Amino acid sequence: MDESSGNERSKGAAAPVAIIMGSQSDWQTMRHAAQTLDALGVAHDDRIISAHRTPDRLVAFAKGARDAGHRVVIAGAGGAAHLPGMCAAMTPLPVFGVPVQSKALSGVDSLYSIVQMPAGIPVGTLAIGQAGAVNAALLAAAVLALHDPALAERLDAFRAAQTAKIADHPSDEA
Amino acid sequence: MDESSGNERSKGAAAPVAIIMGSQSDWQTMRHAAQTLDALGVAHDDRIISAHRTPDRLVAFAKGARDAGHRVVIAGAGGAAHLPGMCAAMTPLPVFGVPVQSKALSGVDSLYSIVQMPAGIPVGTLAIGQAGAVNAALLAAAVLALHDPALAERLDAFRAAQTAKIADHPSDEA
Amino acid sequence: MDESSGNERSKGAAAPVAIIMGSQSDWQTMRHAAQTLDALGVAHDDRIISAHRTPDRLVAFAKGARDAGHRVVIAGAGGAAHLPGMCAAMTPLPVFGVPVQSKALSGVDSLYSIVQMPAGIPVGTLAIGQAGAVNAALLAAAVLALHDPALAERLDAFRAAQTAKIADHPSDEA
Amino acid sequence: MDESSGNERSKGAAAPVAIIMGSQSDWQTMRHAAQTLDALGVAHDDRIISAHRTPDRLVAFAKGARDAGHRVVIAGAGGAAHLPGMCAAMTPLPVFGVPVQSKALSGVDSLYSIVQMPAGIPVGTLAIGQAGAVNAALLAAAVLALHDPALAERLDAFRAAQTAKIADHPSDEA
Amino acid sequence: MDESSGNERSKGAAAPVAIIMGSQSDWQTMRHAAQTLDALGVAHDDRIISAHRTPDRLVAFAKGARDAGHRVVIAGAGGAAHLPGMCAAMTPLPVFGVPVQSKALSGVDSLYSIVQMPAGIPVGTLAIGQAGAVNAALLAAAVLALHDPALAERLDAFRAAQTAKIADHPSDEA
Amino acid sequence: MDESSGNERSKGAAAPVAIIMGSQSDWQTMRHAAQTLDALGVAHDDRIISAHRTPDRLVAFAKGARDAGHRVVIAGAGGAAHLPGMCAAMTPLPVFGVPVQSKALSGVDSLYSIVQMPAGIPVGTLAIGQAGAVNAALLAAAVLALHDPALAERLDAFRAAQTAKIADHPSDEA
Amino acid sequence: MDESSGNERSKGAAAPVAIIMGSQSDWQTMRHAAQTLDALGVAHDDRIISAHRTPDRLVAFAKGARDAGHRVVIAGAGGAAHLPGMCAAMTPLPVFGVPVQSKALSGVDSLYSIVQMPAGIPVGTLAIGQAGAVNAALLAAAVLALHDPALAERLDAFRAAQTAKIADHPSDEA
Amino acid sequence: MDESSGNERSKGAAAPVAIIMGSQSDWQTMRHAAQTLDALGVAHDDRIISAHRTPDRLVAFAKGARDAGHRVVIAGAGGAAHLPGMCAAMTPLPVFGVPVQSKALSGVDSLYSIVQMPAGIPVGTLAIGQAGAVNAALLAAAVLALHDPALAERLDAFRAAQTAKIADHPSDEA
Repeated sequence: MDESSGNERSKGAAAPVAIIMGSQSDWQTMRHAAQTLDALGVAHDDRIISAHRTPDRLVAFAKGARDAGHRVVIAGAGGAAHLPGMCAAMTPLPVFGVPVQSKALSGVDSLYSIVQMPAGIPVGTLAIGQAGAVNAALLAAAVLALHDPALAERLDAFRAAQTAKIADHPSDEA
Repeated sequence: MDESSGNERSKGAAAPVAIIMGSQSDWQTMRHAAQTLDALGVAHDDRIISAHRTPDRLVAFAKGARDAGHRVVIAGAGGAAHLPGMCAAMTPLPVFGVPVQSKALSGVDSLYSIVQMPAGIPVGTLAIGQAGAVNAALLAAAVLALHDPALAERLDAFRAAQTAKIADHPSDEA
Repeated sequence: MDESSGNERSKGAAAPVAIIMGSQSDWQTMRHAAQTLDALGVAHDDRIISAHRTPDRLVAFAKGARDAGHRVVIAGAGGAAHLPGMCAAMTPLPVFGVPVQSKALSGVDSLYSIVQMPAGIPVGTLAIGQAGAVNAALLAAAVLALHDPALAERLDAFRAAQTAKIADHPSDEA
Repeated sequence: MDESSGNERSKGAAAPVAIIMGSQSDWQTMRHAAQTLDALGVAHDDRIISAHRTPDRLVAFAKGARDAGHRVVIAGAGGAAHLPGMCAAMTPLPVFGVPVQSKALSGVDSLYSIVQMPAGIPVGTLAIGQAGAVNAALLAAAVLALHDPALAERLDAFRAAQTAKIADHPSDEA
Repeated sequence: MDESSGNERSKGAAAPVAIIMGSQSDWQTMRHAAQTLDALGVAHDDRIISAHRTPDRLVAFAKGARDAGHRVVIAGAGGAAHLPGMCAAMTPLPVFGVPVQSKALSGVDSLYSIVQMPAGIPVGTLAIGQAGAVNAALLAAAVLALHDPALAERLDAFRAAQTAKIADHPSDEA
Repeated sequence: MDESSGNERSKGAAAPVAIIMGSQSDWQTMRHAAQTLDALGVAHDDRIISAHRTPDRLVAFAKGARDAGHRVVIAGAGGAAHLPGMCAAMTPLPVFGVPVQSKALSGVDSLYSIVQMPAGIPVGTLAIGQAGAVNAALLAAAVLALHDPALAERLDAFRAAQTAKIADHPSDEA
Repeated sequence: MDESSGNERSKGAAAPVAIIMGSQSDWQTMRHAAQTLDALGVAHDDRIISAHRTPDRLVAFAKGARDAGHRVVIAGAGGAAHLPGMCAAMTPLPVFGVPVQSKALSGVDSLYSIVQMPAGIPVGTLAIGQAGAVNAALLAAAVLALHDPALAERLDAFRAAQTAKIADHPSDEA
Repeated sequence: MDESSGNERSKGAAAPVAIIMGSQSDWQTMRHAAQTLDALGVAHDDRIISAHRTPDRLVAFAKGARDAGHRVVIAGAGGAAHLPGMCAAMTPLPVFGVPVQSKALSGVDSLYSIVQMPAGIPVGTLAIGQAGAVNAALLAAAVLALHDPALAERLDAFRAAQTAKIADHPSDEA
C-alpha cells in the first residue's frame, strides 16, 4: 500500500471506515473502495475476514467495531456471501455490502446473499463488482459527511469534478 | 396518519428522514419504513414523487433535500425503478433504495434498476418488498444514531428486543 | 408436539439430528423434516436460531453441537439464508441445508445463499421447500444408517414402501 | 467523425434524431445506431448525457428536445439504465432505448431498467447491445419515413438489400 | 366496443393504428392499449392474428398494412411471442411489441421473444403486461403526433393530467 | 378413463404412443397429451414411472418400449426431471419431454433438466405445462403421420380447424 | 462441404431432412447436425432462411417442405428465434428446434423463443448450442428409423459405439 | 494419478468414497474432490459413469455401491445432470452432487437438475464447479469422520490450517 494512502491500519486509532472482505481475491474488487476513500481523504482499515473460514475473527471484529471507533463498515464478499449480513447482525453500525462478481453466477448469488436480508438486520447493498466498491466508499463518505463539513465539501467537489469530466459528445478516439 | 406518528410532513421543519415513493400503491410497502421509524422515534416526511410522471417534483425535492434539513432519503419504487438512483444523482445525502415487488417480475426488475448503479452515484439497496422497507428505516436510524446517542440507545434496545422475542423452539400453534 | 414424536428436545441427551431454522415461519417447511425423522424413528432436536437476530445463539449452538452429541445438523432458512453456512463454519458435523421458499424470489435467493459456499466449508443442499425438508431428513438418516443397521433396515423399508405405493397408471379420480 | 457522416452535431439546426448515451464507453455500442442512420441518410446528433452524473444536462436536453427540432430520441445506457426512461419523462417525443450489455449481468439489468416502465411514460426498447443499436436507428427511420417518402424509399431499399444478401446455403468458408 | 370508441374496425378506411394480438385471451391485456388510444382520440383497428395458428392472416395483414393506411402497428403476444417480430419482418411500418404475461414464466419468455430481435428488423418493445399495452398506445400516439398538432396537444394534455393527479403524500385510505 | 378414450392401456397390444409421467400429480398436465391423442384417434398407453422412486420400472419400460410396439414416448416430469432423459438413454425411440410446472421455480428447473441433454441422447422438449403436453401429442402424431396417411389427414384437419376457430377480432364478451 | 457428405442440396430430390438456420453464423452450430446426419448416412438439405430478413423464403420453404419430399425439419436460430416456430406453423412435418447460443443472454432468449410455443403448434426443442444440433440430428434419425430398418441398425450401432467409447476411469492425460 | 494419491481404484477393496462423473471432461472439476480426499487420507474410487450414454453401468454401480463397500458417493455432472439423482434412486448411501459448470448456462442447469429432487430421494448438493467438488469431499469426510476419530482429527486439522492461512489484511502483491 502506498505511503500516501489513507489506509490507517497500521495506526493506533481505528479508521472511521472499516473495509472487510472474505478473501484476498476480493481485494481486486474492494481496493476500489479503498482508493475512493483515499481520494476523499477518509481513513480506512482494510481487513480480510472470512465469515466461513474465520468465524471467530468475524465475531470479534463485528462486536468490537463500534467500540474500536469505526463508524461505517464496508463488507465485500462473493458467492454465498454471508459476511455483510453476519457483520450487520453483530454491530449497530451501518453496514454497506459489495457483491463480488462470482465465476459461475456472475455475482447474482453474491447479490441475493447480501441484499435479501430479513426484516430486522439491514445491509445497504451496492452494485456487483467494482462499481459497487466505489459506491460503497461514496456512500460511507456521504454518511460521514453529515457531521463533517470539510468532508462534505470534498465530496461535493468530487461529485462536481465527476460531472465536469463527462464530455459532451462521444469520441471515436476514446 | 395517526397523531402519534413520527410523520412530520405537516410541520414546518423537515424531518431527518424523507421517505419518497413512486406511487400511492408503493405506500403499502413503504409504510413499513414509516412505522419502523415511528417505533424508533425518528421523524419522517413521506412523499409521493414519481420519477417518470412528476420529474419536476423529483428535481425540486432532490436538489433541495439537504437544505431542507433532511439527512437521509429512503426511496421506494417498482419495475423500472429510477427514483432512488435519480434522487441520488441530485443530492449528496445518503439514499437508501427499496425495490417494491412488481407484478410480472416479482421485483427483480426493481432490484436491478436500483442496485446496479454505475460508479459515482451510490444507492444503498435493501431487500425486495416489506423487509426492505423495514430495513431501510433501520439503516437510516443507524446512520442518524452515529451522532444521536439517545437514538443509538433506542436502536440498541430495538435490536435487543428483536433478539429476545425469538423463541427457542418452533411451535405447532404459531 | 405430539407425545409420540421422535422430538427429543425436552430430554437430557441430545438427539442425533438437530433441526435448526431461522424463524418460526420456517417451521411450516421444516416440520416435514421432523415428521420424516419421526417416521424413521430418528430422534431430533428442533430449534429456532436466527443467524441475524440471534447470532450468539448460533455461535453457542454450532460450536457446541458435536460435544452436545449431535451427529448431523439440518438447517433451514429463507432469503439471504446464512444459517446453514454459518453453522457449518463453526462445526465439523455434516450440515444439510434447506432453502425455504421466499416470497419475492421463490427461494432462488435462499438456494443461492445456501448452496454457493466457497471451497472449505460445505453445506449439502436440498431442494427448495417441503421436498427439501423431507430429503434433508432422509439424507441425515442415510448418514446415520452407515453405522446403525436397524436404521438402515428401516430406511430400506421406507424406500421400498415409497416405491410400492406408486400406481402403475394415472387415475382421473386422484 | 467522418466528413461524410450524417452526424449534424456541429451544425446550427438540430438533427431529426438525437442519439444520447450514458458514457463514452457506450459509444462502442451506440455508434452502430449512428452508422445505420448514416447509411440511411438520416442526420443525427450524438451526445453523452449521464442521467446520474450529469442530471442537469439530461433535464436541459430532454425538456428542450422537441423545440430544438429533434423528432426521435435514441437513448442507450447500461446497468441501472435510467437515461431512456428519464428522458421519456421529460419529452413528448418518441424515445427508443438500447440496453447496453453490462459486465456482470450481461445487460439483463439494462434491459429491465429500460423496458419495465410504468404505464404513462413509454420507452420503445430494442435488443441488448449492437443489434439493438442498429434496430433503434431503423425504427427511428421507420418513424421519420411516415412523412418522408424519400427516406421511405431508402429504407425499403435498405431492407431489400438486406434480404438479398442472405445466401441460400451456409458456407464452410464463411 | 362502445359507440364512442375510437375503434374503427367496422369502417371502410383503416385506422392509423392497428392493434394485433395472438389470441382472444391477449385482449385482456391489449384492451388497455385500445382504451388509451380511445382516450387520445386515435382510431385503431383491433385484430386477432396468431402467428402460429393463422400464419396466412399474418402475412396478408403485415404485407398490406402500409397500403391499408395504417401507420403504426401494436402487436401483443405471450410465450414464444413471434407475432411482433414476424409482422415487423413484413412491413416497413413501426411495430411496437407488448409482451403478454405468461403463466409459467411470467412474461420473461414473451419479453425475450419480442425484444431480442436481430439487427435488421426492429420491434420497439414495451413492458410486460398492462403497463406495456398502455405505453404502446402512448408511443404510437407520440409517433403520430409528430405530424398531427392536435394530437400532440391532446397528448401533452394527457401527460399533464397524469402528472397533476399524483398526490403529494401517500394516503392510508387509498 | 372414459370408454370412448383412445387410451389402450387395458388392451393386449401396445399403443403407438406411450405417455409416461413421474407421478400421479403430473397427470393434471399430461392428460392434455392424452386428450389430444384421443382427438386425433391415436392410441396411447399412460403410465406412471418415477425415475427416482421406481427406477426398475423405468429401466424395464425404456428397454422394452420398442419391442413392446411403441413408436414414440412422451415423458412428463417436474423439478429435477430425469424421466425423459433417462428414458431416452435406454430406448432408440423418439422421446418427447414435457416440463411440468413446478411450485418454487415455475418449471424452469423442469425445463432445464429435460432440454439440456448432452450430445448423444436427444429429448425433443416442449413448452412448460399444459401447452407442452398438447404439443407433445401433436408432435407424436406428426411423426406417426409420416407413414399413416389417414392420420396425416386427421392432423391436417385438426390444424385447419384450429386455424378456422380464431376470430378476426377480439371480443369484450369472451 | 466434403464430397462424401450426405448433404444433398445440389441434387434433384429433396433430402429427408432439411436443416434450416437463420444466418450464416448459425452454421458454426448447425454443422454439427449436418455432420451427425452424415455419420448416420442420412441425406440433408442445408439452407439459410431468416424468418425476419427473408420471410418470403420462409413461407415458400415451410409450405412446400412436405411436397418437396422432406420428412423432418431441423431449424436453428438465436436471440428472438422465430424460425422453428414459424416453420412449424406452416408445415405438418415434425420440426426440431436448436437454440443457438446468443451473445448477451447465452441462448436463454433463443431457448424460450423456441420452446415456449402455444398449444397447437409444436417444436421439439433440443439443448442450446452444439449439443442441441447433434441431438436434433439424432432425433430426426430416430424418427426416420421408425420406417427404415437399415437406418435403425446404423443408429443402434452409433449409440453402441458412443457407449463403448466412455472410459471407465478419468484420465489425467485427457 | 500420482503414486501417493489416496485413489484406490486399482486395489481389491472398494474405497469408502466413490467419485463418479458423467464424462472425462468433468474430471477437470472433480479432480478437486479427489485431491481433497487425498489430502485428508481418504481413499476414493474414481469412475466415469454417464447416466445417458452408459445407463447400464450406472445401474450396476448404483445398485452395487453399498455391497461393494462404498459409504458415500460423490457424483458430478453438467447440463441436464441426471447422474447424482439417478444414482441416489438406486442406492441407500448418501449421495453428494456437484453441478459442473456448463457452457451456455454456467451451471444453473446443472444445479437445478441436481438439487431440485422430489421428496423421497435426496441428493446433498454442493456449489457449482471447483468449490463444490472440494466441498463434496469435505462433506464426505465429515460423514466418515463420525465413526473415524483419526479422520475427525485430520479434518479438524485441515479446517484449522485453513483458518490459519487467512491473512489479516489484503496484500497488493497477492
